[in-house]
Amino acid sequence: MTAPTPLWLEDLHLGQTFVSDSLTVTTEEIKAFARQFDPQPFHLDEDAAKDSLFGGLAASGWHTAALTMRLLVEAFPLAGGLVGAGGETTWPRPTRPGDALSVHVEVLEITPSRSRPDRGMIRTRTETRNQHGEAVQISTTRIVAWRRPA
Amino acid sequence: MTAPTPLWLEDLHLGQTFVSDSLTVTTEEIKAFARQFDPQPFHLDEDAAKDSLFGGLAASGWHTAALTMRLLVEAFPLAGGLVGAGGETTWPRPTRPGDALSVHVEVLEITPSRSRPDRGMIRTRTETRNQHGEAVQISTTRIVAWRRPA
Repeated sequence: MTAPTPLWLEDLHLGQTFVSDSLTVTTEEIKAFARQFDPQPFHLDEDAAKDSLFGGLAASGWHTAALTMRLLVEAFPLAGGLVGAGGETTWPRPTRPGDALSVHVEVLEITPSRSRPDRGMIRTRTETRNQHGEAVQISTTRIVAWRRPA
Repeated sequence: MTAPTPLWLEDLHLGQTFVSDSLTVTTEEIKAFARQFDPQPFHLDEDAAKDSLFGGLAASGWHTAALTMRLLVEAFPLAGGLVGAGGETTWPRPTRPGDALSVHVEVLEITPSRSRPDRGMIRTRTETRNQHGEAVQISTTRIVAWRRPA
């Protein structure tokens, strides 16, 4: 893969979309993330997960979020990097072992800064989908975007 | 540490707060998380980070979110586990190497389910603070809470 061309604020337009490659999540990765950051039975143990709300082993939502970031960094090459100011996240269904995730980003808003002429803020909608096209995470995020230097 | 008493929907009240122990983040942990999930220069390399928006090495916001979850699992022992339906997250300032993070949770809303008598939904505000008492993450999250079995 060649390095993508960095995108400045001027290169973005409303409705612009970006799609990532896909990334497959393994049982061991789900358990390793959970051991480190979300040590709850339904993320760690198949038998315990069967009797939980999830009905089977499920990745931590924060694991799905972290994998989404990994895919975003490749798919959405904002100049200066992706620095999120915050946003909303929902998890309509869990990520399961063996799921192949991809992210679909759409530019929703582009707001130049009034006080800082070198930058603006954009708002994006990111849907993380499994191999069946089902959303495992939907987020809207505010991200800094830089103007092309003069 | 003894295992905390699990909390059912009936055990919660508005304004109830929980505070976690603190957890110190190392440079190596910041870089390891970034290599796996957010491989951008300002999360990976001190020199590159100096010239970035962050002015120095900064943890990925998703690393802060994952560490927050780790602290929450210990501090807020909901019966049946912590299963978030979604929420809003902001990062007022980055987590830095050596920061000692703790989480402060407050119960904002308690809404019994109308259709499912065994559960409800609560909304919490979670502030993740560094050792100076400054917020590195503020999130409001909707979480499933279960009624005590009859």
